Amino acid sequence: MKKSLIALAVITATSGAMAQSSVQLFGRLDVGYSNNTVKVDGVKNYSNSGANTVGNSQQGINSSQLNTQFWGIRGTEDLGGGLKAMFMLQSNFNTDTGGSQTDLFNREAWLGLSGGFGTIKLGRNYTAYDTVFGATNHTFNSNINVSTAVFDVGIANYTLRNSNSIRYEAPTINGFNAAVSYGFGENKTASTSATDTLSLAVWYSNGPILAAFGHQNQEISATVDREHTLLGGGYDFGTFRLVGSVQRTKESDRKDRDFQIGVNVPLGNFAVAFGYADGRTKAGGVTRNSDGYALVGTYNLSKRTTAYVGYERSEVEGTASTVSTTKTSNFAVGLRHTF
Amino acid sequence: MKKSLIALAVITATSGAMAQSSVQLFGRLDVGYSNNTVKVDGVKNYSNSGANTVGNSQQGINSSQLNTQFWGIRGTEDLGGGLKAMFMLQSNFNTDTGGSQTDLFNREAWLGLSGGFGTIKLGRNYTAYDTVFGATNHTFNSNINVSTAVFDVGIANYTLRNSNSIRYEAPTINGFNAAVSYGFGENKTASTSATDTLSLAVWYSNGPILAAFGHQNQEISATVDREHTLLGGGYDFGTFRLVGSVQRTKESDRKDRDFQIGVNVPLGNFAVAFGYADGRTKAGGVTRNSDGYALVGTYNLSKRTTAYVGYERSEVEGTASTVSTTKTSNFAVGLRHTF
Amino acid sequence: MKKSLIALAVITATSGAMAQSSVQLFGRLDVGYSNNTVKVDGVKNYSNSGANTVGNSQQGINSSQLNTQFWGIRGTEDLGGGLKAMFMLQSNFNTDTGGSQTDLFNREAWLGLSGGFGTIKLGRNYTAYDTVFGATNHTFNSNINVSTAVFDVGIANYTLRNSNSIRYEAPTINGFNAAVSYGFGENKTASTSATDTLSLAVWYSNGPILAAFGHQNQEISATVDREHTLLGGGYDFGTFRLVGSVQRTKESDRKDRDFQIGVNVPLGNFAVAFGYADGRTKAGGVTRNSDGYALVGTYNLSKRTTAYVGYERSEVEGTASTVSTTKTSNFAVGLRHTF
Repeated sequence: MKKSLIALAVITATSGAMAQSSVQLFGRLDVGYSNNTVKVDGVKNYSNSGANTVGNSQQGINSSQLNTQFWGIRGTEDLGGGLKAMFMLQSNFNTDTGGSQTDLFNREAWLGLSGGFGTIKLGRNYTAYDTVFGATNHTFNSNINVSTAVFDVGIANYTLRNSNSIRYEAPTINGFNAAVSYGFGENKTASTSATDTLSLAVWYSNGPILAAFGHQNQEISATVDREHTLLGGGYDFGTFRLVGSVQRTKESDRKDRDFQIGVNVPLGNFAVAFGYADGRTKAGGVTRNSDGYALVGTYNLSKRTTAYVGYERSEVEGTASTVSTTKTSNFAVGLRHTF
Repeated sequence: MKKSLIALAVITATSGAMAQSSVQLFGRLDVGYSNNTVKVDGVKNYSNSGANTVGNSQQGINSSQLNTQFWGIRGTEDLGGGLKAMFMLQSNFNTDTGGSQTDLFNREAWLGLSGGFGTIKLGRNYTAYDTVFGATNHTFNSNINVSTAVFDVGIANYTLRNSNSIRYEAPTINGFNAAVSYGFGENKTASTSATDTLSLAVWYSNGPILAAFGHQNQEISATVDREHTLLGGGYDFGTFRLVGSVQRTKESDRKDRDFQIGVNVPLGNFAVAFGYADGRTKAGGVTRNSDGYALVGTYNLSKRTTAYVGYERSEVEGTASTVSTTKTSNFAVGLRHTF
Repeated sequence: MKKSLIALAVITATSGAMAQSSVQLFGRLDVGYSNNTVKVDGVKNYSNSGANTVGNSQQGINSSQLNTQFWGIRGTEDLGGGLKAMFMLQSNFNTDTGGSQTDLFNREAWLGLSGGFGTIKLGRNYTAYDTVFGATNHTFNSNINVSTAVFDVGIANYTLRNSNSIRYEAPTINGFNAAVSYGFGENKTASTSATDTLSLAVWYSNGPILAAFGHQNQEISATVDREHTLLGGGYDFGTFRLVGSVQRTKESDRKDRDFQIGVNVPLGNFAVAFGYADGRTKAGGVTRNSDGYALVGTYNLSKRTTAYVGYERSEVEGTASTVSTTKTSNFAVGLRHTF
């Protein structure tokens, strides 16, 4: 008996027109060297724990630099008549420490049905809003971007994922797509209703054109809503591709306006991407600004393995609660591998 | 190189009379909509966290409704001469949140040998008692049953699994089966012995007939034992199947008496099951009663995928320590998938 | 569609001169009965939790007796031109309880490149020192050894693994090998540098001969270093094999000197191994001694499954902070299985 090995070729147990059933063990690793510098009002900051955290000036071997990491099990079963059962169990980890989340499948966990009516997924889902935010974000939605650092300094980032949620994805019709997700909250009390999250997205994708709209309403408490609205798009000119989006956010008396643009230039196995983001948060007559840029170069050693080098820099005038000016820079070089 | 994929066909690396060696990645998901209502002395209760918990009135997307969920790795190796090595590593999770246990293979973890003498499993095992309890429980031992809610209101439920344990399963002889498990406890001190757990089960299974007996003695402390004794059985009439059991429980001066019955009617890919449970706990001259019923309908979309709808309702007069009357009802609809 | 099953035969998706790409699910279990006795100044000790812990007198079903346990996912991808991408995700667990670590891939987590230049691994790596310590340790580096109990009573054991680290393994040239690992620490503050760990190893392995040297410098704080230095080797006489090593350790004003020797006698599927270890810790003019021996017998039921029986006994005059004499003995019998 030889050593156990996961077969790497697609076993077509069923052939012809019938869709295949499969169970896959899959994942992604991303690790390399990084050097982070954070200055608060000109003074170097070391207060936050973990060199991966923006807020700590450290150098070393870090992970999730180009992309976040995961391993998981997913499957598809053909039920006949165009109906499919699908599941996803996906777990975060960091290659630099071996660290993981308390909830093993915190990243994604759902069971669903897919057919002519579209796809329904029950469990822990990405919100619909996240789908269009990611698709229109600069530097290919890599972690070497500045949207997160620059956008979330006033009102907190939208919830990317909802536990106890249902997600519906409509079938594509003439390039038009739509998704909606609803998280139940499940924290109803005798006097307050559950703090649910409703998220929707519509997008048009046809040849070089992408146009996208998203809206998410997340109840923070019985009386406070956090609302995110995004308008974005992209165009592929062949030699390069442009993306961009504008986001408006509301929570209590605070209002934020954010925008970002990016360009991606493929050069065979090489690619270069640049992104710029600009944020503004306003409340009680006080406005604070933030901006930053990111530059990434990638080289595909194979379809599954990519070497990268990147640099990002951001400046934040102050958050909802602080007035310090924080300047952050991050240099990263590393390797990404999928299986 | 194509995408990695776990082969779905049984690879018979060895053929003929020799038993096969294999390693399997396997699992089960179960998620859907549920609506729970809990009333304590007529007042709706929201105090417990988690909508899955009986004790909390919530609606939403919940998991483990028809069955608990897991993923795992298991294997069998043929050692020749009728001897086999076997292992099991099984991990709980919830599809609705992606949540898991602190101990990864908390559900089952054992390594064993199997041969003409039976099977020995060393590690974290289900107790022998649990085997016969499950086999004779109503509504197919699905989670949409009322045994747990109704049976454990006085003396706590038996320990389902023992860490640091040995489990022996005898070979089947003329329909007779036996299993015994022993958990060492491993908490001996200078003045007290380890609080061990001894569990045994015998059952006769032949054609339509099932008759079962189980006993479990769990040391709670150096001076207190928790004893569970069960007599149960079933009969398959062809068009429907009946199961039932009586359980007697003792701990200190408390004595409980529980019984339950169930019927299962298969109708092609459909099946309907009904169960009723009744419990009584007695100590210091005070008796408290509990009862409930459950109704489940299932439809097999395939061998691996089942849609279900269920309803359960229970009423508990009081527990060992409280005198409130708690009425619980739970409606669930969802999907179960195995891989 | 049959039940999902991980193919057990090596699927050579690519053939000929080209190296294969693969993803493997793999692991090891080790569980059995053990009886530990610990006497501190003649009095039986039960204070430590967990029967696996040296320091607690318990009997029961325990794991990691012959070897530690793990499951993991690892892969190799041929990138052409002699270059390979490699990854490792490896997770500890215990079969006796199903227990695991908070950081899932705490055991090993790295992504690397391999080629004519050697191998570079980024992430959570074993230190270079650990490689030569393990290779020259008695009783095959099994857990039934007394090096750990006897060696680490003064200065603490060396760090086996470094998060946020880089490990380089040179190509073998005429039997000469070298490895170096560096852990960044990543805990720099405004006034102190990061507490890094530098570890190196060189060894010569040719036919029956093994000669090895290792050194590890671990910064415990900004002012304290922990230094381990090892000289070891082995010789295979055919009917038996000898190994041995001397270790010198320094930390602040404390100096330790340790040595161990072992012999292994293979007898077909049987093997017998014996090891002896002796330690001495010195500080402030006070010297304390420790010694012990271990004896192991193994029988291979197959290439993947081994039955074992072992006994170890150690005596420690006192540690860096205590003067009690601790006598420990451990008897173990069990089964080890790899997949």
